[in-house]
Amino acid sequence: MKLNIAVLPGDGIGPEVTAQAVKVLKAIAMEFNHVFTFDYGVVGASAIEKTGVALPQETIALCEKADAILFGAIGNAVYDMDPMAKIRPEQGLLGLRKTFDLYADVRPVIAYEDILDKSSLKKKQIKDTDILIYRELTSGIYFGEKTFSDDGNTATDTCQYTRFQIERIAHLAFIAAQKRKRKLTLVDKANVLASSKLWRKVIQEMAPQYPDVAVSYMYIDKAAMELAINPRQFDVILTENMFGDILSELAGVIVGSIGLLASASFSDKKAMFQPIHGAYNKASNQGIANPIAAILSAAMLLDHFELYDEASLVKEGVDKSLKLHITTPDLNTKYEHITTIKVGDFIEDFINNPDETNLN
Amino acid sequence: MKLNIAVLPGDGIGPEVTAQAVKVLKAIAMEFNHVFTFDYGVVGASAIEKTGVALPQETIALCEKADAILFGAIGNAVYDMDPMAKIRPEQGLLGLRKTFDLYADVRPVIAYEDILDKSSLKKKQIKDTDILIYRELTSGIYFGEKTFSDDGNTATDTCQYTRFQIERIAHLAFIAAQKRKRKLTLVDKANVLASSKLWRKVIQEMAPQYPDVAVSYMYIDKAAMELAINPRQFDVILTENMFGDILSELAGVIVGSIGLLASASFSDKKAMFQPIHGAYNKASNQGIANPIAAILSAAMLLDHFELYDEASLVKEGVDKSLKLHITTPDLNTKYEHITTIKVGDFIEDFINNPDETNLN
Ligand SMILES: CC(C)[C@H](C(=O)O)[C@@H](O)C(=O)O
Ligand SMILES: CC(C)[C@H](C(=O)O)[C@@H](O)C(=O)O
Repeated sequence: MKLNIAVLPGDGIGPEVTAQAVKVLKAIAMEFNHVFTFDYGVVGASAIEKTGVALPQETIALCEKADAILFGAIGNAVYDMDPMAKIRPEQGLLGLRKTFDLYADVRPVIAYEDILDKSSLKKKQIKDTDILIYRELTSGIYFGEKTFSDDGNTATDTCQYTRFQIERIAHLAFIAAQKRKRKLTLVDKANVLASSKLWRKVIQEMAPQYPDVAVSYMYIDKAAMELAINPRQFDVILTENMFGDILSELAGVIVGSIGLLASASFSDKKAMFQPIHGAYNKASNQGIANPIAAILSAAMLLDHFELYDEASLVKEGVDKSLKLHITTPDLNTKYEHITTIKVGDFIEDFINNPDETNLN
Repeated sequence: MKLNIAVLPGDGIGPEVTAQAVKVLKAIAMEFNHVFTFDYGVVGASAIEKTGVALPQETIALCEKADAILFGAIGNAVYDMDPMAKIRPEQGLLGLRKTFDLYADVRPVIAYEDILDKSSLKKKQIKDTDILIYRELTSGIYFGEKTFSDDGNTATDTCQYTRFQIERIAHLAFIAAQKRKRKLTLVDKANVLASSKLWRKVIQEMAPQYPDVAVSYMYIDKAAMELAINPRQFDVILTENMFGDILSELAGVIVGSIGLLASASFSDKKAMFQPIHGAYNKASNQGIANPIAAILSAAMLLDHFELYDEASLVKEGVDKSLKLHITTPDLNTKYEHITTIKVGDFIEDFINNPDETNLN
């Protein structure tokens, strides 16, 4: 297969982890005789530095002609402390989501058997957790009208949803549930928010189309607690943009490190793959960034193009690295000095030679 | 001291747990020679049944002349499954908050030494956690304009904050931090939301007035994760309405049961005290509802009227009940059949005779 991949490493640890994901994709291409080409673009704070904006036109053009986008991370503490900055790294990420209508964000949450003890939650609580979060990504309070009063003393955000926006991601979530444990939980705040009332109403109306899926409804406050008490109760979680942001980051608690959480966001035509973690500028260039979220995002890319064997091999490589404790310091307590690159190298070696890889 | 307390037991387990809180307050009044009078009103689903509305005028009048409000819980699954219902139990609670301008919701999160093992989080993670959440309670997306399009296919919520609304609760949070570990964390989503940008800007501007308080800023997604990984890092958390709802319920994970979380909400003139948990209609009338959140809310009431010894005695009673495992099934693994009433009786006995109380 020929794939043209737009690579947007972004800020902070983004470039380091993305380099490992690219390395892994190259190994897969070699091993399976695919032709993957990689074109690089800037985004986020580093794009602002170079071009004055977080999402330059060239980057958009690059993504337009690509089959898929591999995204690193964006963000910078300078902007975090300057809330009123007009130009911000996040505009790079949000701009991509909007430009390419990437409405369905899929975030798997898996408690890996070999590192169950890395979680702050007790083993028995998280064992066998396997959740797929469907987060709506192009609407809600993120993209509604925002205003500041002239005196700067009143600020307003708008959260809007339409039936169309809810239905299109809900269909994907229902279909995903059908292929899994056939449970779907809608997370909303329908006891307070109009937009949540619409979500709940639409899902109630859609449910009969998927009679094999058991649908339940949970308020976001309760869902946050339940995710940390009894995550195994969930199969597919469907939710709006902001609640999905919160729940999926919270899910990092279950897997033991946010450095393991991958994601994919889809429109009907384009797909972007991205670790959930941020740019952690403080950690950059020290070789301590966990590349697994980026590598698993690359595996989701392979899955998306129905390269299932290829994706499985990557996931096996990740599993093996976890089993053998070939992991960065966020997870590793056994070996010292296992760097970002070393983890990438290990998984690359595994792909080249699945039966013989060990720590070298 | 003379106190006239409006008691609004509400729905589900509300009446059961509130009865224990009243029992405890009566014991305190006896022991310390106070005159507490209790006037009962209806609210929530039970008020809808009786009067057609969730917050009848008589209930408002009752609260108006009271010195404080003791609130149980509201909610009912029938309404949860009917998102478009025009009349809803939540209107009782939200109506009280709005009517009495109860803008500052204070929610303590304490990891009780004697029940550390009840948490789904590991002991070492939660030990010594002592957080005070300040949640803004009368604005934000809860109270902004809400619309449905005529065809019912588009729904909109508005999240609005003014400098005034932020400053008044922030001052309370800063002052609270000064009396504690002098750390304040603002939780927002200032990388995306206009309202959060205003929050961050205002707190940045206020911080120099409280030079002894170390201020930090955290995005809500990260804060949710950090609360479940390293809760000890927090002292006072200040946040807006919706984020406060999510974080404070999530905090139930730390203390081992949401049945332990108390809260108080204040305007400049009125105060309301309320367990954080909901009405859990399924659990009602079985004697299994944990009354401690309601009882600790009553202790917050005593603290509010500067009855510090009285409040301490209640809290000691609660500590002792936890130590001796005189607790409802959500916490209890040692004794069977310890009912809601039994827990209340134990704490009442303790107040009457602090030195001699044991399980009887
Ligand atoms: C960086 C930020 C704008 C983004 C979001 O809030 O969506 C991030 O937290 C995420 O989850 O991808
Ligand atoms: C019942 C509901 C409206 C309420 C809220 O969301 O504020 C509750 O969850 C709370 O936290 O007091």
